[in-house]
Parts: sequence; structure tokens; C-alpha cells
Amino acid sequence: MAEASHDFELFYWPTIQGRGEFVRLVFEEAGLPYLDVGRRPKREGGGPAAIMKLLEETAGMPPFAPPVLRVGPLRLAQTAAICRYVAGKGGLLPRNEDDRWRADALMLTVLDMVVEAHDTHHPIAGSLYYEDQKAEALQRAPTFIALRLPKFLGYFERVLGANAAGKGQVLVGGSLSYVDLALFQLVAGLTYAFPRALAALAPQVPRVLALHAAVAGRPRIAAYLASPRRIPFNEQGIFRHYPELDLPQ
Amino acid sequence: MAEASHDFELFYWPTIQGRGEFVRLVFEEAGLPYLDVGRRPKREGGGPAAIMKLLEETAGMPPFAPPVLRVGPLRLAQTAAICRYVAGKGGLLPRNEDDRWRADALMLTVLDMVVEAHDTHHPIAGSLYYEDQKAEALQRAPTFIALRLPKFLGYFERVLGANAAGKGQVLVGGSLSYVDLALFQLVAGLTYAFPRALAALAPQVPRVLALHAAVAGRPRIAAYLASPRRIPFNEQGIFRHYPELDLPQ
Repeated sequence: MAEASHDFELFYWPTIQGRGEFVRLVFEEAGLPYLDVGRRPKREGGGPAAIMKLLEETAGMPPFAPPVLRVGPLRLAQTAAICRYVAGKGGLLPRNEDDRWRADALMLTVLDMVVEAHDTHHPIAGSLYYEDQKAEALQRAPTFIALRLPKFLGYFERVLGANAAGKGQVLVGGSLSYVDLALFQLVAGLTYAFPRALAALAPQVPRVLALHAAVAGRPRIAAYLASPRRIPFNEQGIFRHYPELDLPQ
Repeated sequence: MAEASHDFELFYWPTIQGRGEFVRLVFEEAGLPYLDVGRRPKREGGGPAAIMKLLEETAGMPPFAPPVLRVGPLRLAQTAAICRYVAGKGGLLPRNEDDRWRADALMLTVLDMVVEAHDTHHPIAGSLYYEDQKAEALQRAPTFIALRLPKFLGYFERVLGANAAGKGQVLVGGSLSYVDLALFQLVAGLTYAFPRALAALAPQVPRVLALHAAVAGRPRIAAYLASPRRIPFNEQGIFRHYPELDLPQ
């Protein structure tokens, strides 16, 4: 959605999907207009400088790091919190209260895996280049692929299978919620970063892959993915395609 | 608090503080009775076997990993979600809605640092021993101490300073909330793991250290810390004291 309204302002780095993408997907599926401040031209107050300025504002509680959502006086950081907030405004929370708690736990689990996926290429320090920790990355990635990838995706497969109300097609309750969008993005990122590992794991996680395809095919998400608003994956983001870290051919 | 009621059952490993400790502190400060299932004798259905059994139950949405809170039909995983849930039952949420969102973001930021603190001794894989990744830990820890420790604790210092309603003594709003307990635990763990680094940083984070001391002195928390319910820190948990990873003497 475009910049028709300034009720919701998202602050995130303009050149990567990163954690901001989880937020964008909630806005897009909900059809809620939002201003993606970092992607606006610098002369219109956008760009990385706008994010740095926001982080340095001294009035009220400062946010720790992007993504940050600004809504009125609230500057809200942390992807899981922002996504839940936007989902609440956009009709993408599960209906009953216990299911909302379950969704929160799942969202946090998706984001735990995002950290682990990131750390495959940055096991020593985020402040160093990949090239400076490549030897350690070559140690970390195989364990991630052998143990963590099947554990996490196998878990989501079980959750889908256990959700009778969703007929195995959504994670919580009877209809799509924001955590389904998050799982879509996780699978999209992992498929980009580790295509061979995902292909090898595919037979074990059919519901997860079906959910990924179903979300990609939803009208608003499909339109978003085809638009210039969707930044392509690249080697500056969380999910990076370094073939040497994937399963051997 | 003891086992007077079974309304709240906490499932967590019995021999470490770990992530379960963030939950225990909320129960203790709130004065809500809870059953710490993992610490019950095996013959009474406790011990690690009780946790494994819970994770393997097939009815309803499975939790990913401990800690797990069981309340009626809900099995809720993820430390941030559980703490927020218990805080809501025990009067430890901030009063207004925007402040509740801010608290959630802070809680997630505390837990982000918990992951980074853990990964100082496990930079390659959680499935390997420390001794098998010590060389890499010796690379990761100095960057953590030099960059991440001051960034995170300096951030909480700023948050305390910016919270006029709390007179610099609590993170959000005008009175203690569950995130203050979480920051207490983070500081306790970091002080155990990296005593020299924390001593060196102390002059820059006086409000953070004052909050740590104030929480430790609250009657219910002081009683808890002095009780056998508080498991001592050790080298199986998240915060481990390996002197070789701390600042040099």
C-alpha cells in the first residue's frame, strides 16, 4: 500500500528486506496504508538519515533499533511487538484470547529462527564482515542445516497438522493471521539462502511449503511481491545466499 | 511461592536458572502461587521427564521449547509471552496501553541480549560443548564486551533516564513492571558471567545498577533470592562464568 496516510510510519533500512519485511507483509495483507519512511527520498525526509534521527530523539522512550513503528506518540520497536500491533489494527489477530497468546509464541519462534539464520553468516560479530568470519560460518552453517532447520520447520509442520480448526492450512485458529505471514517470510528467506537444504527437507514439511505457496498467492500479497515495494533478497540482509554455506551439491 | 495451587504450572529444566528464571521472578514478585513442575520429585510427576512429556503431547498446539506455562488448556511457550501473560494476572503490567507496548519491546530487547550473552560461549552450535568451540568463543566474547554490552546496557540507562514518570527508577510508567524484573535478571546474569566487564562499565550505567539493587531489595524478591527456590548460577545455564571470556585482569 502506498503513502496515502501517515497514521502508520515504518522506519527501516531502505535497501534490505530484513526484519522490516515482517511488518510490511502485515500492512500489505491488511490493506492498511503506511509510510515506509526509510524508502522515501532524502529530500522528502526519508533515507537512512531519517532512521538515525528517530533513534536519537530524546523525548520519551527511545527505541533500541529498527524496525520502529511510529503511531502518534508511540515509537514501537521489536518486530514481534510491531507485527502484533499492526495485526490488531488490521484484523489479522486470531479471534480468541488463548489463540492470540499461541500466535505470539509462534511469532517469537519464527524470529528466533531468523536470528539463527542470520548467525550462520555472522557467528562471531555483527560488526565484522562475512569474509572476516567465513571460517567460523563454515562451521556453524552445517549444524544449522542438519539440526536447527529440521527442528524449527518440523515444529511448524506439527503445529499446522495439529490445528484442526485451520484444516492444516493456517497456524492458529480457523483463518489466516499475522503469524502465517511471518512463516511465509521465513520460508522465503530460507529458500533464498539455502535452496539445496530446503529442497532436501521439502518432503518432510509439505504443510509448511503449502502455506508458503498459499500466502504468496493471496491477492494483496501477490500484488505486493510483484511490485517495486518488495525489495529483492540480497547479500546485505538477514537471508544471504552464500552457496558455500548451503548443503553441498 | 510454593505449591498451594495448580492454576499455573511452569515447565522448565530443574538445574539451571535459564529463561525460566524470568518467569519465576514475575510469579514471585506478584505473589502468585505456581507449581515449578520440573523441580518436583520424579515420583510426583516432576523432573526433566515431565518436560519431555509435555513437549510430546499431541493434543492442541505443541510448544516449541521450555519454558512453557500451562494454564488450563493453554500451553504457552516463549519467555516474553509467558512473562507478559503472568504479569497481566499479577498486576505487573504498566497501566496504559502505549506503555504496555513499550514494555513488550523492552522485554524483547532484554531477551535479545540474553541470546547474545549465551552465544559468547556457544558461537558455533548449541549442540556442541563449550570446549569444542572455545577458540571461537574467545573471538566472540571480546566484541560482545566491547560493543554489545555498552550498547544494550547504555540503552537501558537511557530508557531509565527518559522515563520521567518513573523518576529514573523503573523502565516504563510510574511503578515497577515485569520488565524491571527482567532487567534485574539480565544484570545479575551478566555480573556473574563477566564481573570484570561489568565493573568497568559500572560508571556509565548507574541507573541500571541502581534498579538491579532496588529489585534485589524488594521484600518478595529478597525472600526468593535467599530461598532454595533460587537456583545458583552455574556453567550449564545461559550466563556462565568462564574467566577467559571476561575482560583481562
